[in-house]
Amino acid sequence: MNRKAIRLHRKLRGKIEIMPKIKLTKSNLPLVYTPGVADVSRAIGKNMDRVFDYTTKWNNVAIVTDGSAVLGLGNLGAEAALPVMEGKAMLFRELAGINAFPICLNTHDTGEIINAVKMISPSFGGINLEDIAAPKCFDIEQELRNTGIPIMHDDQHGTSIVTLAALINSLSLVNKDIADSRISILGAGAAGIGVAHLLLKAGARHVVVSDTHGIIYRGRKENMNPYKREISRLTNKDRVKGDFKKSLEGSDVFIGVSGVRNIFKEKDINIMSERPIVFALSNPEPEITTALAKKAGAYIVGTGRSDLPNQINNALAFPGVFRGALDSRAKRITDEMKLAAAHAIAHSVRPETKKILPGVLDKGYVKKVAAAVARSA
Amino acid sequence: MNRKAIRLHRKLRGKIEIMPKIKLTKSNLPLVYTPGVADVSRAIGKNMDRVFDYTTKWNNVAIVTDGSAVLGLGNLGAEAALPVMEGKAMLFRELAGINAFPICLNTHDTGEIINAVKMISPSFGGINLEDIAAPKCFDIEQELRNTGIPIMHDDQHGTSIVTLAALINSLSLVNKDIADSRISILGAGAAGIGVAHLLLKAGARHVVVSDTHGIIYRGRKENMNPYKREISRLTNKDRVKGDFKKSLEGSDVFIGVSGVRNIFKEKDINIMSERPIVFALSNPEPEITTALAKKAGAYIVGTGRSDLPNQINNALAFPGVFRGALDSRAKRITDEMKLAAAHAIAHSVRPETKKILPGVLDKGYVKKVAAAVARSA
Repeated sequence: MNRKAIRLHRKLRGKIEIMPKIKLTKSNLPLVYTPGVADVSRAIGKNMDRVFDYTTKWNNVAIVTDGSAVLGLGNLGAEAALPVMEGKAMLFRELAGINAFPICLNTHDTGEIINAVKMISPSFGGINLEDIAAPKCFDIEQELRNTGIPIMHDDQHGTSIVTLAALINSLSLVNKDIADSRISILGAGAAGIGVAHLLLKAGARHVVVSDTHGIIYRGRKENMNPYKREISRLTNKDRVKGDFKKSLEGSDVFIGVSGVRNIFKEKDINIMSERPIVFALSNPEPEITTALAKKAGAYIVGTGRSDLPNQINNALAFPGVFRGALDSRAKRITDEMKLAAAHAIAHSVRPETKKILPGVLDKGYVKKVAAAVARSA
Repeated sequence: MNRKAIRLHRKLRGKIEIMPKIKLTKSNLPLVYTPGVADVSRAIGKNMDRVFDYTTKWNNVAIVTDGSAVLGLGNLGAEAALPVMEGKAMLFRELAGINAFPICLNTHDTGEIINAVKMISPSFGGINLEDIAAPKCFDIEQELRNTGIPIMHDDQHGTSIVTLAALINSLSLVNKDIADSRISILGAGAAGIGVAHLLLKAGARHVVVSDTHGIIYRGRKENMNPYKREISRLTNKDRVKGDFKKSLEGSDVFIGVSGVRNIFKEKDINIMSERPIVFALSNPEPEITTALAKKAGAYIVGTGRSDLPNQINNALAFPGVFRGALDSRAKRITDEMKLAAAHAIAHSVRPETKKILPGVLDKGYVKKVAAAVARSA
């Protein structure tokens, strides 16, 4: 157990706080509160769009979860998700100047989650869905697309944006093209489905997705859902079947988003193409350790961990994506915005095999991501 | 129109912001976020009570509204309520160190409001219901009493606590006892019903409540609802009927929470008892101005306005009440806690006819209120 983390949390008793932007005084109280505020409310009542000018809605993001998939730990419940959401709120503020507030929902029902988000939306300029289990996360996001404010399920799209950014730079280092690269994805939850879709949008043509039941192919009957079925139609054109290891034969890229530690073995790297790229992204325990993968011949290795080189973590994406979406007052997050974000992240560094991406707390890249997203909105 | 208020709001673009409590660094990021935070989530997953030790839930209050009764302005909608809620959030922080976040709901349906509050409750240590129209505000609060965290509809109880505090000090100045005083309340919405109930709990025995249709009496058939019916059974023992002015004959106290400006006339004061007490609390326009009431012979006059002496405003109550409820981890706000708050507010000043209550931004009284509420919880 990470005693240092527990100790720090006990000491802080919360990692965020809500502060007034100006000090309250006897002279400004009648302006920021009753009676003066009445005219501000009246003005918004007459023209709802003014809420973006007179309140902090323009800069508010709700981090919404039901605690059904907290990190890689499964369904720990809404309260247990709160420390993660507060950590995300810190990153939102620190990296992108955004007011993010955790909304942990006391329900696991798809319809109720959708309703709750619709109901709370007047206070927010954007919604970051987080740590909601697949496949309901897909239904929820789809149903919320037309709420009028940008909504993004970060486990899908944050992961996919950062993975694509890492892949862009990694492929340039091995001098391969995404269209010709064979890409094997292990995991068909939120992250796996999200990554597969965005790589296809980015031009990948040889993608095979597997889950714990093996390779997903068109016509597979067992352990499917509408989202895996959609993936089965878009990927694996040769209809390869069998264990996921079969999809590694001659592949250029392995992307692990399985949640299963050490499932990827040293010998699996031998059957990949030359200069293989290995992204073992499960957190906190990757599909293979960086040391083992390197030893077995992987040319570039990335994980989700902050204590190893090449951290491929959502935190590189969500602050800039929401900053850009809020600044442009986008009504939704489109594929084009995600592609723009991935390219901006990738192009913010000069890649080396041990530094394919910026560090989360590096300066400058978030602004570039936000600008690229806003342009593309 | 209050151009100064509009200008200030346009300049600020939001009156609150969410800040990290500590600066993010490369060394604390793995503790406050993944991977270290995983063990904090696991610990809460095993024992949900730890969420009060490891997160900011203990200090979070949601200010929930549907915008159906924004100040005295009626149903302006959820977005239009946001500036008022942000102002309240400023007061929560400034006066009581509480993280308060506005949740403006995109629904006017009683059941949906109840569900929304239940669903968002894991993130919060308390819920301040605000600016929700009567009579649904009563149903909503009643239904939410057993959510496990303190919930208070401020328009009812904030108003009733501060009114009682003002009354305690005013009666002591005129040397009258609450049990013998004849009290006429005009208004049977959230504030009127709330004030009547708390005055009865405080020992008042001669209360008559009127609405725009006249005096409420047992057996009245028109323009009633279950909450007015309850009041008709608890007040007006002599079953006086007629226009509200009839209830003023020989009364010691008038309390206006009607939302109707200038409805109380100078001549109405003549029919009251000697040294009459007049609280004209409707905002922003009182039932009678302080100047007119004084001229007509009122001994003590209070209004809801911050630009006149004797401001009788909820802001004197809600910060301390929630501070006390959060500190004692109360499961609900009881009548005893409200009475304790009223007495603490009253006793924090040495009353004079022109200063029956502390000023909202005065030092010290909030701590006394919080301590009294916590003791009584």
